Amino acid sequence: MMTTRKVILDCDPGHDDAITMILANANDKIQIEAVTTVAGNVEVDKTALNARRVCDIIGLDVAVAEGSNRPMVRETQIAESIHGDSGLDGPNLPDVPKTPVHDQHAVDLIIEKVLESDGDLTLVPTGPLTNIAMAMVKEPKIVPKIQEIVLMGGGTFGNWTPAAEFNIWVDAEAAKVVFESGVPIAMFGLDVTHQAQATDATIDRFAGVDNDVSEFVVELLRFFKKTYKEVFGFDGAPIHDACTVAYLIDPSIFDTVDVRVDIETKGEFAYGMTCVDLLAVTGREPNVNFAQGLDQGRFWDLLENALQTYSK
Amino acid sequence: MMTTRKVILDCDPGHDDAITMILANANDKIQIEAVTTVAGNVEVDKTALNARRVCDIIGLDVAVAEGSNRPMVRETQIAESIHGDSGLDGPNLPDVPKTPVHDQHAVDLIIEKVLESDGDLTLVPTGPLTNIAMAMVKEPKIVPKIQEIVLMGGGTFGNWTPAAEFNIWVDAEAAKVVFESGVPIAMFGLDVTHQAQATDATIDRFAGVDNDVSEFVVELLRFFKKTYKEVFGFDGAPIHDACTVAYLIDPSIFDTVDVRVDIETKGEFAYGMTCVDLLAVTGREPNVNFAQGLDQGRFWDLLENALQTYSK
Amino acid sequence: MMTTRKVILDCDPGHDDAITMILANANDKIQIEAVTTVAGNVEVDKTALNARRVCDIIGLDVAVAEGSNRPMVRETQIAESIHGDSGLDGPNLPDVPKTPVHDQHAVDLIIEKVLESDGDLTLVPTGPLTNIAMAMVKEPKIVPKIQEIVLMGGGTFGNWTPAAEFNIWVDAEAAKVVFESGVPIAMFGLDVTHQAQATDATIDRFAGVDNDVSEFVVELLRFFKKTYKEVFGFDGAPIHDACTVAYLIDPSIFDTVDVRVDIETKGEFAYGMTCVDLLAVTGREPNVNFAQGLDQGRFWDLLENALQTYSK
Amino acid sequence: MMTTRKVILDCDPGHDDAITMILANANDKIQIEAVTTVAGNVEVDKTALNARRVCDIIGLDVAVAEGSNRPMVRETQIAESIHGDSGLDGPNLPDVPKTPVHDQHAVDLIIEKVLESDGDLTLVPTGPLTNIAMAMVKEPKIVPKIQEIVLMGGGTFGNWTPAAEFNIWVDAEAAKVVFESGVPIAMFGLDVTHQAQATDATIDRFAGVDNDVSEFVVELLRFFKKTYKEVFGFDGAPIHDACTVAYLIDPSIFDTVDVRVDIETKGEFAYGMTCVDLLAVTGREPNVNFAQGLDQGRFWDLLENALQTYSK
Repeated sequence: MMTTRKVILDCDPGHDDAITMILANANDKIQIEAVTTVAGNVEVDKTALNARRVCDIIGLDVAVAEGSNRPMVRETQIAESIHGDSGLDGPNLPDVPKTPVHDQHAVDLIIEKVLESDGDLTLVPTGPLTNIAMAMVKEPKIVPKIQEIVLMGGGTFGNWTPAAEFNIWVDAEAAKVVFESGVPIAMFGLDVTHQAQATDATIDRFAGVDNDVSEFVVELLRFFKKTYKEVFGFDGAPIHDACTVAYLIDPSIFDTVDVRVDIETKGEFAYGMTCVDLLAVTGREPNVNFAQGLDQGRFWDLLENALQTYSK
Repeated sequence: MMTTRKVILDCDPGHDDAITMILANANDKIQIEAVTTVAGNVEVDKTALNARRVCDIIGLDVAVAEGSNRPMVRETQIAESIHGDSGLDGPNLPDVPKTPVHDQHAVDLIIEKVLESDGDLTLVPTGPLTNIAMAMVKEPKIVPKIQEIVLMGGGTFGNWTPAAEFNIWVDAEAAKVVFESGVPIAMFGLDVTHQAQATDATIDRFAGVDNDVSEFVVELLRFFKKTYKEVFGFDGAPIHDACTVAYLIDPSIFDTVDVRVDIETKGEFAYGMTCVDLLAVTGREPNVNFAQGLDQGRFWDLLENALQTYSK
Repeated sequence: MMTTRKVILDCDPGHDDAITMILANANDKIQIEAVTTVAGNVEVDKTALNARRVCDIIGLDVAVAEGSNRPMVRETQIAESIHGDSGLDGPNLPDVPKTPVHDQHAVDLIIEKVLESDGDLTLVPTGPLTNIAMAMVKEPKIVPKIQEIVLMGGGTFGNWTPAAEFNIWVDAEAAKVVFESGVPIAMFGLDVTHQAQATDATIDRFAGVDNDVSEFVVELLRFFKKTYKEVFGFDGAPIHDACTVAYLIDPSIFDTVDVRVDIETKGEFAYGMTCVDLLAVTGREPNVNFAQGLDQGRFWDLLENALQTYSK
Repeated sequence: MMTTRKVILDCDPGHDDAITMILANANDKIQIEAVTTVAGNVEVDKTALNARRVCDIIGLDVAVAEGSNRPMVRETQIAESIHGDSGLDGPNLPDVPKTPVHDQHAVDLIIEKVLESDGDLTLVPTGPLTNIAMAMVKEPKIVPKIQEIVLMGGGTFGNWTPAAEFNIWVDAEAAKVVFESGVPIAMFGLDVTHQAQATDATIDRFAGVDNDVSEFVVELLRFFKKTYKEVFGFDGAPIHDACTVAYLIDPSIFDTVDVRVDIETKGEFAYGMTCVDLLAVTGREPNVNFAQGLDQGRFWDLLENALQTYSK
């Protein structure tokens, strides 16, 4: 008997967020309850617009809610250098998507969905953790009802500063709320997501699927690969966010370990760092299932199979 | 022609919060649009209950909304040592008040009221600034529409730590959001509120008014004065919060100065401090109208007059 | 029987440092064992030169050692806006003083003097605490042998930032070492030193003494008063540093209270603050005898009497 | 023509410090000018004693000076769990070594040696950086005269906290002074030193050399290997410190990269972290030559060859 995982995708599309939506929508182990958006890669009006565009393209019919447009405490930070001005540069996108904006704020939709659930709703944040933390602060009753938080963020090293990954760095205070909440967390940080780099060979393979969605993904990856080369000197585009949904579909693709992770919110140089206790030197209880390794072959198979489910 | 000030009282009653409600309700220069509550002196279910009790006692008929029950980032902090287990120890209080709990979260009520306003709504926070900051983060559009924030909090010295006053210390991150928002702020910190100490003579004077509300106030002050003696060694009970509404009724009672105030959220010993630039050494633009002095005679007159408006 | 206090004056002259030397040298209750200098008001080569110049002028024959020219951890910070380019602008000063530079580093001279003492040596720092802390770190054995540290620095408010006084702010890490050392500390911060403002009337009174030293002091004060007016808008020049030696001569001039004081070294806005626990809310053991009040009449008498001991 | 490198070994022996001394003493490319000691693995009286013991055993005749017994700002921290009560548990050691304690403080010896040098003196700190930083603060003139600092410390991950390596964590303020000094730094952190793990095979190989010094090393490594197994679960004992001298003898053994490294001194969880900008995201000038890789074969050859130079 197959277990279906009910999820809210909380995201800031964003190239790899879009691919995550595509993967989740394609797999019947995943039931998308809602898509909520947050400022991150670009401003929230753009990430909500992009999420709706992706829904149009992939035929996903769920509530798409606009959420927080700024971090909880700091000033707004965005990453246009990576995702372009629209947040989803590369493909041609519908100007006015048919998928409407949901009439609730993302924070309220998350609260409502969790409270209505039977404790079987998983949150999948692939952007800054603002919406999740805001929901926890506004309605603490949701905390014990969230099944799991499966997130992309952090790592033992950084990409936005030497110590911090972008999603956590944008709103480290929100991350602190989430990581200290007691909700089970599966964390996909740069250690593992940098193993998920789509190279030319991968992109060619996806191109071979040859349908509208695969074509969209190929255009996304070509742009993303270009900016990763320019900014970081990488030969491939890390599809960071898709690791989260891949894990929910098939956890055996990943090597994980239970560890204590604390969020640095005070530091001068390490603000936004996820301090991952891999050597177990703190003596504190683990709060995170931390992904270290990735079976690349099976990961790309999973994505290719997902693309093949879409019609021409 | 008299200008009426429309206000939301955002509070954590709390003895001096209750007196603030009484003062605002009594004066026709103040139009109370709503009462919103926050965790602070005690948990938010208690502060909401207390606010409803006070509405019953003083015949105030407005929405009373329950708000945030924890700070934005830190763990919950309360001050039972000062306000007793109920948050309003002293008088006999109705177990089940007639005033209902409003069906919106305080954060949403604040957002709605501000957006509906003509830019003429003033927020009067007399507890931690969690609700106000949460509203600003959830809906940044409210920021330019708030007429003014007239708050009790902070000071050039502390009462909960050597550097920090309780309201700001409980949620310094929220305070940072509010003080950096650009909304005009009038700040009533310990420098001025410690000048508003109700002594036995003051209490006797209020007792002479002799109606139900004055009797309630006298019982509040007797309890409050006792805990201030025990905890701080003070001879009087500072009616901190009432300075805010007194200022809205008659600003001439106070000496104020425009200064830059920044909130310390990183410090080891000074967390939650309001750094008040009285000597103008930072060279930064003022963001706060800071109250330094109080005409005690006129302050007590104002309160006594307010009590006299209530019927026997 | 009179007790003589053996002291090392550790200073950064500096106008008020110079007056402190004059006061100490004039009073037979004070036995100056050495003068050590530190970067602060200006660089250490200038403060050492100035200390030697003052020795020439007042006939003081002790070792004058040059000390640390930078804070322990931060980069160098100076205060030329207050003391002028030389650090002692105003009077005409000997280019090449007869008083030589001692051949030991200030840190080593302090260590040697303390270790040689019978536990009866008091350190009187009136600049940043770099030399004292460096001595404690280099030779921890001195810590239990220091009789007392009587220092100018800190306060419940700041003059260099809203939270921090200059001496402590320049080297807060050094201050942390000193305040946590366990050595008895008498602290003269801005709370009390701003009560020691030399106005025109005071300066005229000193002018009336009419000898070389009083003339020197008058010229110092005229310059110092001018910069305090320009920078801070004060009507008088606070002779901060002289409070330390005045206290050693006659403690009854000051109101003091035993309190806990902690040094903020982590804060974003409050770096260098002395967090003074006047309300005893920390529950921690006092480590400082904190001066709050000053009998101005007796303070000025003490200074005038000191000037009168010098010959024409 | 061979270039000889003049070095001061500034250390806290410590098992791997001892092996570093043995390696340096055996190779005629290295001229040891002095050994200075610091509190770290154990207190400074023990590290100085151990350094003298090692000199006895290996016939090294240089000044061995005792240095700082506490960090610059924090309280003393030691690591007995790794090195045992003596700091050099395992072998039998002479109670009273013949090598005397030098009569200068380590800080003063470092200052003197650097000032006397022709700019050709390299400092090799393999413990906390207290002595080096104290020397820089006490006598800033040494800074431009130090040829290079080749240190063991830090890394992109930690061993004492999730973020910090022991040597840097013990005195992060000292590390900040050193890393911001402008002196060329070659840094051997955990990234590379964890590649230098002596396994049973390595130890057997050293045992085969069969002289007094190799026997001493074998006993050191057996103890060290045991504590690394118990505390960290490692199968080998990382000979961290010896990487420094190995690099001075033959830099080609190591892969290094020029990067910016900043020291976190403010953080709540990341205090003592070396923030290594491997992706060059800060845009700041490199200040460190950072070792990433190690040719293990050649490293062990170097050590074995060194042991063979000692007589039976």
